Amino acid sequence: MNVTPSELAAAIRTIPDFPKPGIQFKDITPVLGNARLLAGCIERMIEGHVPGEVDAVVGIDARGFIFGAAAALRLQAAFVPVRKRGKLPFRTIEQSYDLEYGSNTIAMHVDALTPGSRVLLMDDLLATGGTAAAAIALIQRLDARILEAVFFVELESLGGRARLGSTPVRSLVAY
Amino acid sequence: MNVTPSELAAAIRTIPDFPKPGIQFKDITPVLGNARLLAGCIERMIEGHVPGEVDAVVGIDARGFIFGAAAALRLQAAFVPVRKRGKLPFRTIEQSYDLEYGSNTIAMHVDALTPGSRVLLMDDLLATGGTAAAAIALIQRLDARILEAVFFVELESLGGRARLGSTPVRSLVAY
Repeated sequence: MNVTPSELAAAIRTIPDFPKPGIQFKDITPVLGNARLLAGCIERMIEGHVPGEVDAVVGIDARGFIFGAAAALRLQAAFVPVRKRGKLPFRTIEQSYDLEYGSNTIAMHVDALTPGSRVLLMDDLLATGGTAAAAIALIQRLDARILEAVFFVELESLGGRARLGSTPVRSLVAY
Repeated sequence: MNVTPSELAAAIRTIPDFPKPGIQFKDITPVLGNARLLAGCIERMIEGHVPGEVDAVVGIDARGFIFGAAAALRLQAAFVPVRKRGKLPFRTIEQSYDLEYGSNTIAMHVDALTPGSRVLLMDDLLATGGTAAAAIALIQRLDARILEAVFFVELESLGGRARLGSTPVRSLVAY
């Protein structure tokens, strides 16, 4: 496959002032839209892991579903969705986190992970780390073991990595 | 892999009165949460297609991302997200469709598909078919060729299939 991080970085498109003025949005759809880059991106994201070593990949709604589900298939693992409160139909555990203004709550099904299962967390973007930290808390509340949190893109200046405690963190493209 | 549709059907969990009273929600997360069933489900969804024959898999936000991205990886195809209006950062084309009360609008990036490209549409559920019909319209407006629309679950009594015109439609588990 042999896709380099710099090839991936070159395919990311910056959209000024989205979703609001002042935000330089990193648009990853050109990576998804290229079969070779998509496959190479998934290979890079699962790097260091092999089928049989990971029980489940947890992906965060919505773009984390793309990377997480593809990684789960590749690693012969299960896929577990984390969603905003109210979106999952069965009984859930919930975790809130602070936003710049207000707060947000994400949820996971109460039976999504078995105790001791080995888990990767995946999302497209590590920004402030609030969502990822809450997802890690949900994983740990179900007594699963998080092996690594993997992000396609990391916005280093926002300091998200520091919010993820002792969880190993990896990203492919950092700004 | 050898997962049968009846094994998949047996793993689907019916949640009464979700998201509102009277709805019997088909919860597919137990399928996703079992590595063997997830892989088998994806194999069934791509049945009849081989790598090199499909240029892109279009998945509908949010659960369609799970099936679509995994299928795209398996078919060595690109993945294209369809989302609610306002969620995609680049220039989009939009398509509206009627709901029981009001309407909804979905969007696709204007450069998501090249003319003549061969496309599969994937989603978790075919219900009334409104979203899928709108997604097919978006695909056709970009002059791409839709090979098939594939759904994990189909609620036959809602007649969604009839709204999808001449597009070949397939589902794995029908109620």
